[in-house]
Amino acid sequence: MSFTPHTLDPNLDIELDREVDVAPELVWKAWTTPDLLKQWFAPKPFETPHCEIDLRPGGVFRTVMRSPEGTEFDGAGCYLEVVPNERLVWTSALAPGYRPQSGEMVFTAIIELRPNGSGGTRYRAVAMHQTPEDNKKHTDMGFVEGWGAALDQLVALVKAL
Amino acid sequence: MSFTPHTLDPNLDIELDREVDVAPELVWKAWTTPDLLKQWFAPKPFETPHCEIDLRPGGVFRTVMRSPEGTEFDGAGCYLEVVPNERLVWTSALAPGYRPQSGEMVFTAIIELRPNGSGGTRYRAVAMHQTPEDNKKHTDMGFVEGWGAALDQLVALVKAL
Repeated sequence: MSFTPHTLDPNLDIELDREVDVAPELVWKAWTTPDLLKQWFAPKPFETPHCEIDLRPGGVFRTVMRSPEGTEFDGAGCYLEVVPNERLVWTSALAPGYRPQSGEMVFTAIIELRPNGSGGTRYRAVAMHQTPEDNKKHTDMGFVEGWGAALDQLVALVKAL
Repeated sequence: MSFTPHTLDPNLDIELDREVDVAPELVWKAWTTPDLLKQWFAPKPFETPHCEIDLRPGGVFRTVMRSPEGTEFDGAGCYLEVVPNERLVWTSALAPGYRPQSGEMVFTAIIELRPNGSGGTRYRAVAMHQTPEDNKKHTDMGFVEGWGAALDQLVALVKAL
């Protein structure tokens, strides 16, 4: 098992690459179970009041995030690859059922997991963009910090299961 | 085995649904072998001088079509589903490797094949669009007639193999 072979483009892609001390199976469960995902997905003080998951290529991945001020961010994309405990790919460029859709800062996300040899997980998250502008906007929004903080929340959650 | 369960939207989707008297395996071969595809894909007098196929989800599907006047139309999308002899899905909304891309009249295509019970194939091709405008443009370009004429070329080609 190996990570995505294609080389990332630093002008178009953002990457978070970390090790966490929980097993891949638990990370996978947290990413693919709506009632769990709602508890960790948004970095606090944001919340995720709603999540829909149809875990198959073409199936919906929808999250509604809510800011402390009550603004909601509702986004639905679709899964492209589902390899349990190893690899999850989805995109906001396609609506559920693969219908093309446009939007602000469209991206494709790849989550890759593998055992780190000591019971934990090597965790890699990649966001691929169409343009350097989208990539910069996502970076400036704090992708790495935000997904990192959310990952810390995920780890704390699954340890308490 | 059944066809796509989701209902098509007549404002957004175009469909070609026909029976042809060659087996699904031959139709599949013609759709997935570059040297064959180049011989039937463009309705004459258009030609397809170039084709690239990496037959896996995320892999490239690129065709270059050429008009009788010599204008070339070069498009590369990526495959989403590859089920041999049954179902082929690709989109122009994603570049190879799933990177989002935009363009004129972006669409997702679904080709579905099944045995028709008498040695031939029930053949269904669907093009899904984001907007009614894209759908109308594709319709007015002659999607049904063009894909139908190309299918006739495909059938004649594989019968001669």
